[in-house]
Amino acid sequence: MRTRAPTAAVLLCLVSATAQADEGMWPYNNFPAETFKKKYGFAPTQEWLDHLRLSSVRIAGGCSASVVSPDGLVMTNHHCAHSCIEQRSTAKKDLIKAGFFAKTTADELKCPEIELNQLVEIRDVTKEVQDATKGVSDDKFNDVQKATLSKIEKECATSDEVRCDVVSLYQGGRFDLYKYQRFQDVRVVFAPELDIAFFGGDPDNFNFPRYDLDVSFLRIYGKDGKPAKMPHYLKWSTANAREGDLAFVSGNPGGTSRLLTQAQLEYDRDIRWPVAIARRSELRGFLTQYAKKSPEAERVSKKWLFYVENSLKAFKGRQQALADRGFFKSRVDAEKSFRAKVDADPKLKQYSVAWDGISAAMDRMRVLRHDYDLEIGIRTELFGLARELVRYGDEIGKPNGERLREFTDGKLPALKQSLFAEVPLDSDFETASLAFSLTKLREDVGVDHPAIKRLFGQKSPDEIAAAAVKGSKLKDPRFRKALFEGGKATIDASQDSMLVLARAIDADARLARKKVEDEVDGAVKKNGELLAKAMFQVYGTSTYPDATFTLRLAYGTIDGWLEKGQKVAPVTTFAGAYERHTGREPFALPKSWLDAKAKVDPQTPFDIATTDDIIGGNSGSPMVNKDGEVIGLVFDGNIHSLGGDYGFDEKLNRCVAVHSAALIEALDKIYGAHRLVDELKPGTAPKAGQP
Amino acid sequence: MRTRAPTAAVLLCLVSATAQADEGMWPYNNFPAETFKKKYGFAPTQEWLDHLRLSSVRIAGGCSASVVSPDGLVMTNHHCAHSCIEQRSTAKKDLIKAGFFAKTTADELKCPEIELNQLVEIRDVTKEVQDATKGVSDDKFNDVQKATLSKIEKECATSDEVRCDVVSLYQGGRFDLYKYQRFQDVRVVFAPELDIAFFGGDPDNFNFPRYDLDVSFLRIYGKDGKPAKMPHYLKWSTANAREGDLAFVSGNPGGTSRLLTQAQLEYDRDIRWPVAIARRSELRGFLTQYAKKSPEAERVSKKWLFYVENSLKAFKGRQQALADRGFFKSRVDAEKSFRAKVDADPKLKQYSVAWDGISAAMDRMRVLRHDYDLEIGIRTELFGLARELVRYGDEIGKPNGERLREFTDGKLPALKQSLFAEVPLDSDFETASLAFSLTKLREDVGVDHPAIKRLFGQKSPDEIAAAAVKGSKLKDPRFRKALFEGGKATIDASQDSMLVLARAIDADARLARKKVEDEVDGAVKKNGELLAKAMFQVYGTSTYPDATFTLRLAYGTIDGWLEKGQKVAPVTTFAGAYERHTGREPFALPKSWLDAKAKVDPQTPFDIATTDDIIGGNSGSPMVNKDGEVIGLVFDGNIHSLGGDYGFDEKLNRCVAVHSAALIEALDKIYGAHRLVDELKPGTAPKAGQP
Repeated sequence: MRTRAPTAAVLLCLVSATAQADEGMWPYNNFPAETFKKKYGFAPTQEWLDHLRLSSVRIAGGCSASVVSPDGLVMTNHHCAHSCIEQRSTAKKDLIKAGFFAKTTADELKCPEIELNQLVEIRDVTKEVQDATKGVSDDKFNDVQKATLSKIEKECATSDEVRCDVVSLYQGGRFDLYKYQRFQDVRVVFAPELDIAFFGGDPDNFNFPRYDLDVSFLRIYGKDGKPAKMPHYLKWSTANAREGDLAFVSGNPGGTSRLLTQAQLEYDRDIRWPVAIARRSELRGFLTQYAKKSPEAERVSKKWLFYVENSLKAFKGRQQALADRGFFKSRVDAEKSFRAKVDADPKLKQYSVAWDGISAAMDRMRVLRHDYDLEIGIRTELFGLARELVRYGDEIGKPNGERLREFTDGKLPALKQSLFAEVPLDSDFETASLAFSLTKLREDVGVDHPAIKRLFGQKSPDEIAAAAVKGSKLKDPRFRKALFEGGKATIDASQDSMLVLARAIDADARLARKKVEDEVDGAVKKNGELLAKAMFQVYGTSTYPDATFTLRLAYGTIDGWLEKGQKVAPVTTFAGAYERHTGREPFALPKSWLDAKAKVDPQTPFDIATTDDIIGGNSGSPMVNKDGEVIGLVFDGNIHSLGGDYGFDEKLNRCVAVHSAALIEALDKIYGAHRLVDELKPGTAPKAGQP
Repeated sequence: MRTRAPTAAVLLCLVSATAQADEGMWPYNNFPAETFKKKYGFAPTQEWLDHLRLSSVRIAGGCSASVVSPDGLVMTNHHCAHSCIEQRSTAKKDLIKAGFFAKTTADELKCPEIELNQLVEIRDVTKEVQDATKGVSDDKFNDVQKATLSKIEKECATSDEVRCDVVSLYQGGRFDLYKYQRFQDVRVVFAPELDIAFFGGDPDNFNFPRYDLDVSFLRIYGKDGKPAKMPHYLKWSTANAREGDLAFVSGNPGGTSRLLTQAQLEYDRDIRWPVAIARRSELRGFLTQYAKKSPEAERVSKKWLFYVENSLKAFKGRQQALADRGFFKSRVDAEKSFRAKVDADPKLKQYSVAWDGISAAMDRMRVLRHDYDLEIGIRTELFGLARELVRYGDEIGKPNGERLREFTDGKLPALKQSLFAEVPLDSDFETASLAFSLTKLREDVGVDHPAIKRLFGQKSPDEIAAAAVKGSKLKDPRFRKALFEGGKATIDASQDSMLVLARAIDADARLARKKVEDEVDGAVKKNGELLAKAMFQVYGTSTYPDATFTLRLAYGTIDGWLEKGQKVAPVTTFAGAYERHTGREPFALPKSWLDAKAKVDPQTPFDIATTDDIIGGNSGSPMVNKDGEVIGLVFDGNIHSLGGDYGFDEKLNRCVAVHSAALIEALDKIYGAHRLVDELKPGTAPKAGQP
């Protein structure tokens, strides 16, 4: 849904507040050095910025991370590496439950699907992109722009190790080309037990005080199969950060909606979130009950439950932010004021139509959204693989610029990684999930819709799902590779049951997608570009663009907030975790923690809250001090931060991180992971005879 | 939540449209005879109205019904009697699945919980109620009014066979006392298989064309244990009703919200429905998956799944109506216009504060709603029984006017029926449901809330639920009766585990309820009364009040509508049902129907759509012609009717009923229920040797 959301309408309160508050997710090529200096008395040098940028890495699947040793050690969250840890588990050896520590590099486990991206260059390509769509009508706009982006990306991506994305900033007001070094051999080094990585579970999620050791250490390997040598990496802080200290966060916020128009906000408030919340809620009920079938059912479905509960809470927070009458009114008032300025200026008046254009597009989306489920409604792993193969066959023969975006040349390395990954897939869970998806699809699109009649015939969702999973060999990565390498002819000739299912819906799904792209996305993008131009002329370019899952720098301090009149302290301790322990999930500390209770210093700082402006996608971001040293590991925000999608309130929004001292204390005293402590803080850990 | 919703702000479009459209759920003492006559050329006589009123009966649990023979035969929907049919089923004999027909009166099965109410009198008590609250402050308003209503009701209810309710109409603008004859011995005579009663299941629910035989026949028994003699009953129509024919509906619409203020509508759109939809969606996922445990798990949870899916679809329809930008704006504009009239008139200006008072109350509700879950969050049958007992003990010693409303003397017969009913309760399902409820309660109220800490201690929701169900004898109606009869001392002394749980939360639950009643309900009622007074002065009293689950008369014609430019025909046939049959649930006709296919006339009308203005609670309403003869049985509305909560659109909103001919054809040809056909249409069915 993200591609449909963004457009521009600047928030007055946002622009005026920026000078004072620690607000903003700043692109590395637009850090507000002057503003920052006014508040903090100094500004980061270009060298400092470059080093932090090159030490930051993005997990392509949706998280942030950082390089923390010259030998390619990478720090991220447990929940960012959950998939890998689960994929390397079996019914007998559950690494999610038990945790994992590779005693030597030889024991480090390869992650089938993790790709890391290091941002090596940012280049402005606005003129090239905007010139290509000049004078193009709404319904063709998306196609023409898509082709232009694919062309620029292809020219940039000179090898499989380079990834290039053109990023639309300020809702089409600016386009930057982001060039990444790509790392696909990534291995897991350390992960604690889920019970402490996610202590407090869903009830404590997005809450604070908090006591989570949400960390995993990974390692980048080179083509030679050896740990990669990384010239840029973050050093560990020597002194523990405290309340009031400055804290930078370098990571990849996934998306924000702070520049949307009223019509888009209404769509989000009244349609997007209520619909998404209902769907996820039902899925949550399904997963919770599914897990009760057996311990193995619980194990294979656990990461999905986390994913669903996590996003559900985030969606609810966003819906609630928009449901706040005062907040919504402030957005409406800001738009009115902006529009009045545009209407009053003869030079700008031409842009005024853009609001109506976007409003009409959102009205159209209200109609098209049901059929759009044909494109986005079926979300199981096997079906996803089948659709990728079917579409790869159909797309690869087309010119690069005419393909669906995810099949352009620049995207092929990621596609191959996804298709060839050796990941375990549970047939029972795949069947149950597919039946669930199909039932919901029929419900949303409608029993009597021709596409549904074609797809279902006389069959029930359960029957279709069972047959499709049972008759499919797509669980086998070698089979998928053979199909991929055989190309369109081989794929089309296959009668694999899941491919047959993916094919059966594909024409209808493509049609539904095309309608949304042409009739909604095109108009929103085109009109968004107009509003961005008006915005730059009225307010200048000194603000930050909405988040786009690209690298941004945020800054703030370690600070609590007032909750119902009570100050929430910004630093928790190990002692607090032991106090919160009930012995029952999700408040059960793992045995390793109970056993080590006497060894750990109870006053060790555990989790911290800061005023940094972050959002989903920032998970795993390093938090560094003035000297660029690691002082924490971002893993969450407080409950108020959920509304951060639509606006930042420094009084309430907080970023939540694991304190660097907690990581060392746990690695050292609880897990005895001394080789890791020594790698993070050379010369700290005891050497002889210790793993 | 209903008690908090209503207040007054008239809809201009509503008032002006009423004269033309078939809109309105008219109280029997305010039928718009003149308006009706203008359109239809005649008006029902008082005698006609009295007869239809006395032939209509309400199912106290939430449905409508009618008496259709002099021997107390009652017609309602299958889904209105579902609970009874399920309660009389066992794992071995599933009457929901197999259907039921009592061959003789001796075979008719007593329903443990069904109570029927016949409306014998309506009396205006406005002055008495309003005088009592004159000058009372917002926070005391609710208490004082409550005591007044309880007093009036007690004086009216001279025996256990009489039930009296004071009904607040026009959001407190008028109060009428409704006096009912109460019938508690009700038995089931006939029910078809669920597969045809609810053919098309959730996908077809609230849709049309439709092919459902959603009927049950019950019978009222007298104190002598014999079928009750009922002087007022509806005769069957001799000619089949057709497209264009006039159709009256006499039933009990549960509630509408057509007179709410903007602040209340915003609460519904942004908070009430999204929250309720999320909760029900999760419950749906839970129930769907729970049913897959075993056939018995499916059987015992089925009625809940129906209830949840049915209400979920209704909630979504309501939320979508409010999410419609044009519709919402029309409501906002109407309020502005009304308020402008009030502000402009020196006599009325005093009422203008009411809007702000309601707005402030709704803002307060946004805060209190989380804690309010302590009162309404746990919804399992055993817990409900335990709470009733605990509260009965605490309340019964208080003066009638000071008790919680549901424990006033007038409500005791219903309480006793509920407590003493011999209904099967499944321990496994009760445990799973209670664990679900407790988990959600902890989530909504918050892990660190003192009430939650008190309730949970170190225990998990699963542990608490398992222990509470396992250690409880409340499944046994004799045990419940003994506690009830022992009174407070006996109840308080009991250490039954479910009573212990109910007690553990009761003080916190009562406090949360009291806050909502004092800080929200009181203000809404008091200000609603002011707005009603303003409304009567500006617009007169020629409109109808919002629905209140009291008997109303609606009128309309059998008519289709335009859906995406295509006319939907208002009458379906048996042939259509056979065409829609796929053999897979929910589109699988039962064996009886497949076997009888050659015998039935395929052109028999099946379901019909009419322009009557109805809503949930109207299920089971008789549909009659000009002569007061049965032409149909209301069981649903079309998808557009869901928005009918907030406004009626004659172009789209449709009532859906089973055609009277379908009932006779099925009883006769498919079920061979000749004694029933003969009772409904004397002299029609073959006599000799037939059951």
